Amino acid sequence: MTQDTTDDAAHMAHALCLARRGLGNVWPNPAVGCVLVRDGRVVGRGWTQPGGRPHAERMALDAAGPLAAGATAYVTLEPCAHFGRTPPCAAGLVQSGVARVVTALTDPDHRVAGRGHAMLRAAGIQLTEGVLAAEAAELQAGFLSRILRGRPFVTLKLASSLDGRIAMASGESQWITGPAARAHVHALRAQHDAVMVGGATARADLPQLNVRGIRTPQQPVRIVVSRQALPPLAPQDADHGPLWRVEGTPADILADLGSRGITRVFCEGGGRLAASLLQAGLVDQMVGYTAGLAMGADARPFVGPTGWSQLAQVPRFDLIETKVIGGDLFHRWRAR
Amino acid sequence: MTQDTTDDAAHMAHALCLARRGLGNVWPNPAVGCVLVRDGRVVGRGWTQPGGRPHAERMALDAAGPLAAGATAYVTLEPCAHFGRTPPCAAGLVQSGVARVVTALTDPDHRVAGRGHAMLRAAGIQLTEGVLAAEAAELQAGFLSRILRGRPFVTLKLASSLDGRIAMASGESQWITGPAARAHVHALRAQHDAVMVGGATARADLPQLNVRGIRTPQQPVRIVVSRQALPPLAPQDADHGPLWRVEGTPADILADLGSRGITRVFCEGGGRLAASLLQAGLVDQMVGYTAGLAMGADARPFVGPTGWSQLAQVPRFDLIETKVIGGDLFHRWRAR
Ligand SMILES: NC(=O)c1ccc[n+]([C@@H]2O[C@H](COP(=O)([O-])OP(=O)(O)OC[C@H]3O[C@@H](n4cnc5c(N)ncnc54)[C@H](OP(=O)(O)O)[C@@H]3O)[C@@H](O)[C@H]2O)c1
Ligand SMILES: NC(=O)c1ccc[n+]([C@@H]2O[C@H](COP(=O)([O-])OP(=O)(O)OC[C@H]3O[C@@H](n4cnc5c(N)ncnc54)[C@H](OP(=O)(O)O)[C@@H]3O)[C@@H](O)[C@H]2O)c1
Repeated sequence: MTQDTTDDAAHMAHALCLARRGLGNVWPNPAVGCVLVRDGRVVGRGWTQPGGRPHAERMALDAAGPLAAGATAYVTLEPCAHFGRTPPCAAGLVQSGVARVVTALTDPDHRVAGRGHAMLRAAGIQLTEGVLAAEAAELQAGFLSRILRGRPFVTLKLASSLDGRIAMASGESQWITGPAARAHVHALRAQHDAVMVGGATARADLPQLNVRGIRTPQQPVRIVVSRQALPPLAPQDADHGPLWRVEGTPADILADLGSRGITRVFCEGGGRLAASLLQAGLVDQMVGYTAGLAMGADARPFVGPTGWSQLAQVPRFDLIETKVIGGDLFHRWRAR
Repeated sequence: MTQDTTDDAAHMAHALCLARRGLGNVWPNPAVGCVLVRDGRVVGRGWTQPGGRPHAERMALDAAGPLAAGATAYVTLEPCAHFGRTPPCAAGLVQSGVARVVTALTDPDHRVAGRGHAMLRAAGIQLTEGVLAAEAAELQAGFLSRILRGRPFVTLKLASSLDGRIAMASGESQWITGPAARAHVHALRAQHDAVMVGGATARADLPQLNVRGIRTPQQPVRIVVSRQALPPLAPQDADHGPLWRVEGTPADILADLGSRGITRVFCEGGGRLAASLLQAGLVDQMVGYTAGLAMGADARPFVGPTGWSQLAQVPRFDLIETKVIGGDLFHRWRAR
């Protein structure tokens, strides 16, 4: 690797860090990051703002002002090329006088899909594509899923005992995992556009389904999968996101959420909803919090009956990450 | 810490490494390690040999020969003081002319219990006790349990899906965890005096209950907990340890095993036996292998019904260690 490409990767990694700030609060837009570098110095940084605007490039260009001229712009996603509420970012970059643009991914949105890159090239800007593409695709898994598969990326959370139980037979479940793991769940909720539960869980627990204990610019949408009228959950306010009731097959429900702009869904149960998502092959990621106790088979299982009779039918997940949180074991897996 | 105590800890750590080689193949004796150091050089090393004899000190002294004179002996457990089949190790150390002895633990066996240390002091040997005592107690958890509680240390193994399942409803269970995790199980078996299963598992699976794929000087005892006649398991031979049928309450069974000299038991199920051990508060350690699949509530749970109705009744375990083995997650927990 030459010094140049090493630098490109380092600046793109920086831009990806900035992009991450937008996860969970910029839907239906992608969470993008942008770093402007001139003579080896960072002269502007930007990331997609809550609600999806301003875009990362606009923010970085505004921060850099005249220093943008001659700089290199590192952007985690191809700059937009379509005129919407604001002029396209590709045009903004051209106007600013940047000399070079480095991107990680082509935007698969049909309104962009290479047109942003083309606009830059046409203006004589030097262009490098595909830097840290894999990392950017991982960060953008939700947006890419919505665009390419028409549905959000789905994460299923499982907080259980060593033997996979989430509550005693009576329903008693306070507490299985510790306070640090519970706080971590709130941090994950904040990085998702929506938190989803089944109707039985909504009725039994009247859950808040919001982010507590950490600041978040935007509370997630609360989704209840149910054919029945909603139970009395909190109305939408500063601490509670919009409340949506959805019904249908898992595939229909997710297609509906995708069409409404949701890119990342965090499903927290219950067991029947979890089982139906798994059966439909619609779980992209599982996050587990395992606590050090074995509750026994009379306690409630996390995943409900699936109807699978053969091991070959069971979807497999690959281990991505594990760490200890408080006294509990955290683990994250991706669908194979 | 002075240089001296740093050196003492380093040499004792070496002795503990040697001691570990005996785990699983020296019962009813403790697995001890011994290092002889003269002028900063290791002149002899020893560990308890398969079957429990010769002892670690004897082996190290024989290795050192005349170089033992004036040396310091690091021993992970107080040297024995009683005349049995062979002269006591404390006497052997005195005879060898070592100048100093450093030990980690006092032997709680009433035949020793300080008498080994006293014999050394009486001979004018300089004595330092308690070096790396906690590490030595951890290594000797099985022997200490047998002497102090009259029963072996019990490890319960749980190899399951993310949702705590060990087999499909049909019983199909090949394979949930990967080959690396299964090889790791054999390494753990080799470090235990006995492998234990319930009668239903013995009848359903006709398991081998031996160590395969790695060398072991001594196969573990095979224990089947059952009130019925044993199913046709392999007879004892070079590849299969003794086969014992035991019955009674979990406490009675473990007391019986303790009186027969067993210090470390590895329980591999089934669910009813696991539940009865947990209910009786007799599980000291849990080791989990978690594979990346969610099988659903129709699949078989690892732990059977326990009858607990309140979370406060459920025994808690503390996370000691976690690592990735193949694609599976390994985790080890100790009873609180
Ligand atoms: N301790 C924890 O971590 C935790 C977490 C979550 C849940 N829980 C507990 O779990 C229990 C509820 O779990 P559960 O398994 O009985 O129910 P659930 O999964 O929460 O809800 C099932 C309900 O979801 C609705 N639904 C609609 N379409 C569906 C579809 N395609 N697939 C699946 N469900 C669909 C139906 O609701 P309608 O009948 O309304 O149409 C169905 O009855 C509660 O007691 C709750 O406290 C505990
Ligand atoms: N895939 C895996 O990793 C795995 C591992 C282990 C087991 N399994 C499966 O689990 C199934 C068997 O499990 P299980 O839960 O039904 O039975 P189990 O725990 O293997 O055996 C229960 C039997 O143990 C005997 N027992 C005697 N005293 C006992 C006591 N104090 N507590 C508990 N049991 C005592 C009784 O046998 P008697 O009736 O003979 O008196 C009882 O019927 C089999 O299908 C096996 O294949 C799978």
